[in-house]
Amino acid sequence: MKAEQIRPEMHLRPIGAVRSEIKESMLTADEKGLALKERMEKIREYHHRIKNTVSDLVIETEFTDLLEGIEGFSHILVLYWPHLIAPERRGLKQVHPMGREDLPLQGIFATCSPARPNPVLVSAVPLLERRENILRVKGLEALDGSPLIDIKPYSLNYYGAENPAVPPWMEQIHRELEI
Amino acid sequence: MKAEQIRPEMHLRPIGAVRSEIKESMLTADEKGLALKERMEKIREYHHRIKNTVSDLVIETEFTDLLEGIEGFSHILVLYWPHLIAPERRGLKQVHPMGREDLPLQGIFATCSPARPNPVLVSAVPLLERRENILRVKGLEALDGSPLIDIKPYSLNYYGAENPAVPPWMEQIHRELEI
Repeated sequence: MKAEQIRPEMHLRPIGAVRSEIKESMLTADEKGLALKERMEKIREYHHRIKNTVSDLVIETEFTDLLEGIEGFSHILVLYWPHLIAPERRGLKQVHPMGREDLPLQGIFATCSPARPNPVLVSAVPLLERRENILRVKGLEALDGSPLIDIKPYSLNYYGAENPAVPPWMEQIHRELEI
Repeated sequence: MKAEQIRPEMHLRPIGAVRSEIKESMLTADEKGLALKERMEKIREYHHRIKNTVSDLVIETEFTDLLEGIEGFSHILVLYWPHLIAPERRGLKQVHPMGREDLPLQGIFATCSPARPNPVLVSAVPLLERRENILRVKGLEALDGSPLIDIKPYSLNYYGAENPAVPPWMEQIHRELEI
């Protein structure tokens, strides 16, 4: 089967944008010059900060009616576009996770890298509050200004996994970041 | 903040397609004529069948290198496009869940309806096996031929939720469908 046989137009339009105090990614040029230990310390701080960050999802008012009932869910799934990733980076094939050359090269589909062929990022977050067209959430890594693609109600049936296993390199990162 | 300020081109290209024995959605014209009880019985059977269905994600060979390491994960997140949903249905605002008029109208963003402004569907599934560019998974609801948008490694950190609460209408559906 060739995917060429079925090519619907897959064009997305923003349904809103993220308003967050997180203005830039953790992997900035500055940090690339740091030794591994200092760098991981910075990343750990960054992750801790994100976990406690409260962001607003500002939905275009023409879509307010589509939010009816979302406040009945404790968690939502947020789909967004990492708008600061340059389009040419969508061609990357493999990376060292978090830019760490001590970890083995991984295919992009085996990582959470925002630079991927179709950069649609997904995050499950607690929904703190809805005010009309604005959803307040906690712990969203999306940078300020990220276009929103979709909001879904979180259901374990679709998005949960029982005892998911990850490879050693990811276990190591989680351990080092204390997440 | 207006989302108009930030409009990157958000165009997706298929990275592959789903090969599945599930050829059509449960909500076909046939079933709409059935009484509620019969209809729910059919939907329950359909869900049970999907849960046990084994599908193949056939990735375009140009992307095979991007899969390197995915076999280290027990679960993956699959993003796909519901290609049989007519584009004009992307304008729907509210629906009765599963077409059931006994359940209250919900905004599209509060439902799992495949007809939504940006129909990017997300499913967490066990990864059974990888053979080169083909990923074998279990329990994927995607219909045969659905274009694939992205494959992500499943990490509780991004996609898990602790004790997620859902509203009464969804609890009722889960109870009736025994899921």
